[in-house]
Amino acid sequence: MFKDFKLIAGRPVSIQVKDYMKHLIIKSALQGGQKLPSTRELSTLLKVSRNSVISAYEGLEDDGFAYTVQGQGSYVAQGAAAQNGAEAALWMLDWTERLSSQALLAEELDIMKRGIRAEKGTISFTSIAPDERLFDLDHVRRAFLERMSVEGNVLLNYGYAKGYKPLIDYLKQYMEHKGVDLRGKDLLITNGFTEGFDLVLSALGKRHGTVVCENPTHHTAIKNLKLHGFGIHGVKMERDGIHLGELKQALEARPYDCAYLVPSYHNPTGIVMSPEKRQRLMKLMQDYNVPVIEDGFNEELRYSGAHVAPLIAAAGGGNGVVYLGSFSKVLFPGLRVGWVLADQELIYYLESLKRARTIHTSTLDQSILYQYLLGGNLEKYLKKARLEYKRKYELTLACCKEHIPYASLSGDGGLHLFVTFAEGFNTRELLVACHARGVIFTAGDIFFTDGAGQNTLRLGFSRVADEDIVRGIAIIGKTARQIMGE
Amino acid sequence: MFKDFKLIAGRPVSIQVKDYMKHLIIKSALQGGQKLPSTRELSTLLKVSRNSVISAYEGLEDDGFAYTVQGQGSYVAQGAAAQNGAEAALWMLDWTERLSSQALLAEELDIMKRGIRAEKGTISFTSIAPDERLFDLDHVRRAFLERMSVEGNVLLNYGYAKGYKPLIDYLKQYMEHKGVDLRGKDLLITNGFTEGFDLVLSALGKRHGTVVCENPTHHTAIKNLKLHGFGIHGVKMERDGIHLGELKQALEARPYDCAYLVPSYHNPTGIVMSPEKRQRLMKLMQDYNVPVIEDGFNEELRYSGAHVAPLIAAAGGGNGVVYLGSFSKVLFPGLRVGWVLADQELIYYLESLKRARTIHTSTLDQSILYQYLLGGNLEKYLKKARLEYKRKYELTLACCKEHIPYASLSGDGGLHLFVTFAEGFNTRELLVACHARGVIFTAGDIFFTDGAGQNTLRLGFSRVADEDIVRGIAIIGKTARQIMGE
Repeated sequence: MFKDFKLIAGRPVSIQVKDYMKHLIIKSALQGGQKLPSTRELSTLLKVSRNSVISAYEGLEDDGFAYTVQGQGSYVAQGAAAQNGAEAALWMLDWTERLSSQALLAEELDIMKRGIRAEKGTISFTSIAPDERLFDLDHVRRAFLERMSVEGNVLLNYGYAKGYKPLIDYLKQYMEHKGVDLRGKDLLITNGFTEGFDLVLSALGKRHGTVVCENPTHHTAIKNLKLHGFGIHGVKMERDGIHLGELKQALEARPYDCAYLVPSYHNPTGIVMSPEKRQRLMKLMQDYNVPVIEDGFNEELRYSGAHVAPLIAAAGGGNGVVYLGSFSKVLFPGLRVGWVLADQELIYYLESLKRARTIHTSTLDQSILYQYLLGGNLEKYLKKARLEYKRKYELTLACCKEHIPYASLSGDGGLHLFVTFAEGFNTRELLVACHARGVIFTAGDIFFTDGAGQNTLRLGFSRVADEDIVRGIAIIGKTARQIMGE
Repeated sequence: MFKDFKLIAGRPVSIQVKDYMKHLIIKSALQGGQKLPSTRELSTLLKVSRNSVISAYEGLEDDGFAYTVQGQGSYVAQGAAAQNGAEAALWMLDWTERLSSQALLAEELDIMKRGIRAEKGTISFTSIAPDERLFDLDHVRRAFLERMSVEGNVLLNYGYAKGYKPLIDYLKQYMEHKGVDLRGKDLLITNGFTEGFDLVLSALGKRHGTVVCENPTHHTAIKNLKLHGFGIHGVKMERDGIHLGELKQALEARPYDCAYLVPSYHNPTGIVMSPEKRQRLMKLMQDYNVPVIEDGFNEELRYSGAHVAPLIAAAGGGNGVVYLGSFSKVLFPGLRVGWVLADQELIYYLESLKRARTIHTSTLDQSILYQYLLGGNLEKYLKKARLEYKRKYELTLACCKEHIPYASLSGDGGLHLFVTFAEGFNTRELLVACHARGVIFTAGDIFFTDGAGQNTLRLGFSRVADEDIVRGIAIIGKTARQIMGE
């Protein structure tokens, strides 16, 4: 005994000695009532200072694992060992047969459990997360220290379901600067876009049971609509956004509980809906009285051109649009902060749902983000990030035009390009062949609401090095040609 | 114009100038095509440096709100103003009629929207949050800086739904030291207890539609069980925990989907279930094959006495217990971190549900907590916190014995005491009378599953100053006597 004790760095020695002794007690290597080695002995055996052992024994006693007999030493407490369960028959349930249909569906639709794993060295175009090398850690560090010095105690205790007040106020002004009329509206902080979307879908009554959206669309949205039991009707995209003629037909044909739309840097096509179309779209939704969930995805990543106001701005003082915002694709997705801006009556109910689900979003995350934004760091960061992503976007575009000239491309910026091959071409087959050559991407069918899109793929370039973009797209092009030649 | 510009501290001047000009453009005080003042003029008007204005104009251009005509100056971009909506009829929906029954119920059961608001100066016994003055901010600060220097970029980008690996491993060992047999089990990080509970209830199929629990019990649990559509059967408490005879009767009478139990520092009674009862309880649940959701609430706040293993430890290698853990009542609730320890098959499905709901828990929160725990700070902190809370507990107990000697008390530690008056006494009435005298507490009926408990109340003392404990309980006692005398 005491031979397998090994110190690790960064943890106090006395705690490690306590951990180790606890382990022996739990595993019944030291038994209830048994005398522990003297502190002097154990210090020699474990090659640690005697003070560490003294402190470890005190800790064991604090935790109820040992007791001291005055003048005699320390003993193992009775009943501290784990139940070995040998006597009683093991109680084993079959959990799978007790699962809800929602749990089974969540697993089935979980593409993280279905995707191809990228081995080391693989060139992967699957991610549309930001490039972490662009993060300005110094400003994040400073934002944290500043907030902690102002109100550290407050930040670490319970906050409010609606969110951290300074951040709420900041984001309201931020949205006002996108042209939003804040009258009658309110804002709720969420754990990123995903929780916001989940809460809104939970709050929305299923009067008709179906949602209308762009086809293709964000696959997480498709997943969550299905998990909430909504039927999905997708409307095809044109060069400047959703096809309004088909949307009108769809709205004429049947009622919908809401529309889910991604007007800017639409995922996966990268299309930015034109300002004119936004106006006409809003008129249409108003005519049919179908509320809109607007996904503000990547709005910040505009590389050039005029300011395009979100749909909720086009709604003016009306309350038909629920806006879901997040900086996750531009700033720090590790900080799980997003927001819902909507009619204040709706927010009032969403707040109660949020409280029941997660109480509130990490106050630390919210306060760091607030301080970072207040300090004007987003502007500096976006300047750098837009330049870099624009460069990569243009490189990716040029490579696609060179190596996949026969495919059609869409994507006005953002962090990805969408590639459409001729009808009949299968990008799943292409993916398997490319994977064998060390390149992966996202087959586009997962973005389609109707099983279509077998001839499409999404190329996320944000985290791919320049030389890998060049090499990877060349491989995709060559492999595609070979498949077509067969 | 330009008269109402006011600088605030902590935000770069150039950004404030940009914000201000954006505001004027959005509100159409400056119109599309209109020439902006020269940088020199504006710098004089706003009393800021010319460089700030130059940089603000650049920012406006970057954001698509202005453009430059070479040699002439800057102009307001067309279409940047907010839609004034005056022409089109406002699109107003009645959101309340579109809400789901879940949203309506969440609002109805939201006690934060029902409780008495504490005016300034009120002595409030309603909170059982930790006393933030005990927080050791220096160690939190150091944990953050250390983690950021090791892997800051990684922490700020997307993490994994299951959680931050070092924290998962740490918590597994932590649970092992509570006597848990980890074989066949796995661990999922959640946004505190509440999300963990919500996920487990989502994953649990409603085969029978009812859950058995202690009566009274944690009101958030009651709320969330109702929100998930479960019926609730409460079993009364005795001095050492749930009444096993009545539990057996309940299990005999009908099947349950699961049991929800709080064996340690039970909320609201503060009772710690005895080790013997834990064994017998587990035997019973196994006999009836009803899985247990164990709420590890406040387990860390043991003031004295032997180590009491959680129920999941008593289950040995069996998989019938789902353990929900959190440090929120002892450490920093502002960091929203909790965990679910359970059968690995169940965790596999919970992971997919978690991904669909919130993607993952803040990596920053997780990594700070990990580094804090690794550094042995929990032990140091608990030593201090236990001493302080124990002192307050004893003071509260003594005050209750003095001023409410006729009421029965329960609570073996933790952060609260539970007070039961004679049958027929109404603590809602007492609360109204005490509130008028500047003292509030939590009326106990909200913890009961069957509408009982009108004669009970919970006193949370963790955040009440000593002199207020003394004064507040004296007022409660005096007021109660007056009501009884009437």
